[in-house]
Amino acid sequence: MLRGLQILAENQIGVLRDITTIIAKHRGNITYSQSFIIEHGENRGKAMIYFEIEGGDFDRILEELKTLPTVLDVREEKPFEKVFGKRVLIFGGGALVSQVALGAITEADRHNLRGERISVDTMPIVGEEELADAVRAVSRLHRAEILILAGGLMGGKVSEEVKKLRKEGIPVISLNMFGSVPKVSDLVVSDPVMAGTLAVMHISEKAKFDINKVRGRKI
Amino acid sequence: MLRGLQILAENQIGVLRDITTIIAKHRGNITYSQSFIIEHGENRGKAMIYFEIEGGDFDRILEELKTLPTVLDVREEKPFEKVFGKRVLIFGGGALVSQVALGAITEADRHNLRGERISVDTMPIVGEEELADAVRAVSRLHRAEILILAGGLMGGKVSEEVKKLRKEGIPVISLNMFGSVPKVSDLVVSDPVMAGTLAVMHISEKAKFDINKVRGRKI
Repeated sequence: MLRGLQILAENQIGVLRDITTIIAKHRGNITYSQSFIIEHGENRGKAMIYFEIEGGDFDRILEELKTLPTVLDVREEKPFEKVFGKRVLIFGGGALVSQVALGAITEADRHNLRGERISVDTMPIVGEEELADAVRAVSRLHRAEILILAGGLMGGKVSEEVKKLRKEGIPVISLNMFGSVPKVSDLVVSDPVMAGTLAVMHISEKAKFDINKVRGRKI
Repeated sequence: MLRGLQILAENQIGVLRDITTIIAKHRGNITYSQSFIIEHGENRGKAMIYFEIEGGDFDRILEELKTLPTVLDVREEKPFEKVFGKRVLIFGGGALVSQVALGAITEADRHNLRGERISVDTMPIVGEEELADAVRAVSRLHRAEILILAGGLMGGKVSEEVKKLRKEGIPVISLNMFGSVPKVSDLVVSDPVMAGTLAVMHISEKAKFDINKVRGRKI
């Protein structure tokens, strides 16, 4: 069973080493972890550390972590998968991104009402370098399931990163735009609202649409 | 200087312990970390591990990590802050979430064109328990800067979580809705597009709007 563990700790060198040593000692397998320095509020400057742990002696891990002098608080929390679920990513120019988001959010709403968890994460961004960086970073994003590129012209380095991302198993939908991105994407869709809708249908467990069955098509 | 380190590793107990031990040994302070099991593509089942490290001997850390038998690949990458930047979060019913997103994406587009990095992340979700879980999890999200709640009726446990989140320094904008959420939020905004616009203006370094100067107001 997967269990979530949230830790508030001092921001010091070696804190993560000490915590992961305890988790490994009690045979916990860390399937997800995240830590960052808190930027706001009463715990500003402290470290927020979160793990999802499979197997091992969870209760002993929790108790032993409390004995570390750098650990200020430890509590169990629900795994992210159950809260935010799968993520649709949308990058590109503002007007198009917002129309794709409208389609994706509306479709995700219908699936989430039936018990799924689908999030729609967007960033309006233009420029070959900037977009290439964003596409490249998708494979580092937890729960990222599909990417939609929304713009009038994309190619060059963006297309190179699209190819790499697809190899990593994350499908890419392109709007019907100028540049080479449509040629290297899984699917080309002319209408932005439809593009968002299809992306959510692809990652949903309940909808019947599968991008693998229409790969290379243009609508 | 902050530097990003991306590691592909085996999914085994103790991998994170071994890696963080090397980082601590060379005096690197981990300001951000993330790890998850890859779900798609050629590296499916392997662990994707990513660190942002401040100080210490970065190059020696990188070289020594390569000697670990569980580590398959190590490379330097750009920190997330530079790629995706600050995050606006929007939760609630589909129709309203998509209108708030339209405002936020359009405004973020303008700021990102001038060199900022603002992302707009959404989840259509309804139900007191489900929304309360989502609000509660915001403080565990990296780079989360502001939350907008978009619905017709929210209260009870959602309001309790809103109060806690605000204590942690993350402001909350509520649409003008029924229930107790507007009473416990920083700001109440009637128009969803305006709510999204103001949220982005608040977190932008360039816009002049500051939620602290209008706290408790309703427009």
